[in-house]
Amino acid sequence: MSFAVDSTALDVLFREAHTTHGFIDEPVTDEQVQAIYDLVKLAPTAYNQSPLRLTVVRSPEARERLVSVMAEGNQAKTAAAPLAVILSADAEFHEELPRLLPAFPAAKDAFFSERPVREQAAVLNAAMQAAYFIIGVRAMGLAAGPMNGMDHAAIQKEFLDEDHLPLMVVNIGKPAPDGHRPRSPRLDYSEVSTTV
Amino acid sequence: MSFAVDSTALDVLFREAHTTHGFIDEPVTDEQVQAIYDLVKLAPTAYNQSPLRLTVVRSPEARERLVSVMAEGNQAKTAAAPLAVILSADAEFHEELPRLLPAFPAAKDAFFSERPVREQAAVLNAAMQAAYFIIGVRAMGLAAGPMNGMDHAAIQKEFLDEDHLPLMVVNIGKPAPDGHRPRSPRLDYSEVSTTV
Repeated sequence: MSFAVDSTALDVLFREAHTTHGFIDEPVTDEQVQAIYDLVKLAPTAYNQSPLRLTVVRSPEARERLVSVMAEGNQAKTAAAPLAVILSADAEFHEELPRLLPAFPAAKDAFFSERPVREQAAVLNAAMQAAYFIIGVRAMGLAAGPMNGMDHAAIQKEFLDEDHLPLMVVNIGKPAPDGHRPRSPRLDYSEVSTTV
Repeated sequence: MSFAVDSTALDVLFREAHTTHGFIDEPVTDEQVQAIYDLVKLAPTAYNQSPLRLTVVRSPEARERLVSVMAEGNQAKTAAAPLAVILSADAEFHEELPRLLPAFPAAKDAFFSERPVREQAAVLNAAMQAAYFIIGVRAMGLAAGPMNGMDHAAIQKEFLDEDHLPLMVVNIGKPAPDGHRPRSPRLDYSEVSTTV
């Protein structure tokens, strides 16, 4: 089965890429993070709602605060990573919707006037954008270490506000040779698919 | 800013790709869908929980049933697409977790013994896998038309069961030249990012 992009790209983005816990000591620049975002912002979300927000943890003081609210098993690797970024979902994304969806500006009031509906949509669509972001990190030649093991309430209190729902923290950098574990098994196509 | 994959791949996967409503009349094979899945199953989910499930709507009878539960604005394009696939989240993914996460089989009972927790995790992680799937469709040289506008309860009743939560329907095929609308604006990096 032949793909439309070359094998090297598929290796970099999927086949040879791994969730990474150990990185070499080489900085990740703001320009790299912006280039990753500027690439992956183009991928789709429902109604183009684009709810993903990034908190780039750059200062040593902020890194220390972040490490203190990660689960114990995630603390050392978060402390040592070249860069850590908090991904969150903006539950007030609808304020930008008339600008983001000029073909249907009424979507803001027609579908997203209620906060619980917005929170659900924001988390689902920001999760999609988090996935695109991980692919973008790999496209940049870097490795990503996404983590959910953290005190979500503390992350929100320390770094965000009541309108931003924390999704995950992603460590980013060039991977160390021993920076990942062997890949765990995946479900076969026959186990996840039904044809009707 | 230079990426680690070539410009052609970035064009195919992000820059020149569009959510597509109109396709040319050329079939999408089961082998293509499987190759897409076998590529994107490698991308990460939390605890490798891998909750995405695919319902490939292949028969004319099933397509007709699907069209009838799509929102009115999505009916004609779903009827005409070479293939439509229902993406859902398996709320009972934890049953496979000991096999998927051999390094920590106790995660099944430690974190996922409660159904509401599982539903939330399944939707978030299946949304990430849906995003990978869309990128995989593009990698195959096809275009994706993901849609949320549908009767979710009816989709679940007609095609799934109480353990499978419908996420979206994705039309798949080779795009027609006029098969997409102009790209809507995206938020700038400065609007979505904070550095601390």
